Amino acid sequence: MKIALFGASGTIGRAVVDALSARHQIIRIGSSSGYQQADATSSASIRALFERIGKVDAIISTIGKLHFGPLSEMTAEQFRVGLLDKLLGQVDLALVGQHYLNDGGSITLTSGIVSEAPIRYGANASTVNAALEGFARGAAVELPRGQRINVVSPTVVSESEAIYGPYFLGFESVPAARVALAYSRSVEGVQTGQVFKVW
Amino acid sequence: MKIALFGASGTIGRAVVDALSARHQIIRIGSSSGYQQADATSSASIRALFERIGKVDAIISTIGKLHFGPLSEMTAEQFRVGLLDKLLGQVDLALVGQHYLNDGGSITLTSGIVSEAPIRYGANASTVNAALEGFARGAAVELPRGQRINVVSPTVVSESEAIYGPYFLGFESVPAARVALAYSRSVEGVQTGQVFKVW
Repeated sequence: MKIALFGASGTIGRAVVDALSARHQIIRIGSSSGYQQADATSSASIRALFERIGKVDAIISTIGKLHFGPLSEMTAEQFRVGLLDKLLGQVDLALVGQHYLNDGGSITLTSGIVSEAPIRYGANASTVNAALEGFARGAAVELPRGQRINVVSPTVVSESEAIYGPYFLGFESVPAARVALAYSRSVEGVQTGQVFKVW
Repeated sequence: MKIALFGASGTIGRAVVDALSARHQIIRIGSSSGYQQADATSSASIRALFERIGKVDAIISTIGKLHFGPLSEMTAEQFRVGLLDKLLGQVDLALVGQHYLNDGGSITLTSGIVSEAPIRYGANASTVNAALEGFARGAAVELPRGQRINVVSPTVVSESEAIYGPYFLGFESVPAARVALAYSRSVEGVQTGQVFKVW
């Protein structure tokens, strides 16, 4: 398969490359030099990317910024960060990408455990992650010609514990390689509208 | 209790007034004349409303616009409608409203059955409704001094079948009076971080 991977330079993205590149052609899209570049907050930029790389059999996204902070101080402006970046950014990869997806192709987005397991400072993350799971359920029933869409929901990744560990005290982390299996299951499996939880 | 009801002129809002006004003081906020006015898409407007009416024991919201349309034609701009109106609008009622909520007070927002049961043209609705449920889970763990937050998820309301019925063929509708019970349960009960489903 020809797979467009958004977020290829991140911790999970690199593990996805390791898991899938032996069997598939991966087009790596990310912020590192040598990768294809695209701004997921711009429909025009996403469209230009797909015009460059052509139609694909799978779209994978591991991208998105959230706002973390105390609910008591949170503002609508801060909340909007996660809505427009991790949520609408990934949704738009699907909305634009569906027109560059081959029959039977798949879209796999990324949510996170905070959708179901709230944490301190995580109101924005709970919202955005739950939203992405709702989007997959809603979009799955309309995708035509065997196209599928799923979401992978990882817990905190072992390789990222130095950064995110303090938000996830008591949570068991998982290696990125184990998270990558869920993307394989989504891309190479048959299900649609699902949340693949890695926790 | 003193209750601020956003969306008081809507079908569900009027049923909430009928259910709660015998026991509580309801401040009706809505688009009809004679009601308090507030623009939920503006933090400043929400803040001005609460400065006028003072602190309350409960905040109820039954408001919000969604985008309905085919996934194959949906754009990020259209998708943003529901994100900024029904989702961020209601979230901001909670973010601003928490500072005008008495100890032990509650916030009750409104999602909808499409969060879990996808329908044709409903990808935006599935996303926004799931997001609101995630927000309630995420915010509930941080609200202090016994404050609570829940979401009511109604199916299609019998009184609105003329408008929304074609999207919900085969769905059993429920009378607005039955939906209103869930708001009573949220405001007058003890639970937090819950989704009260009326279907």
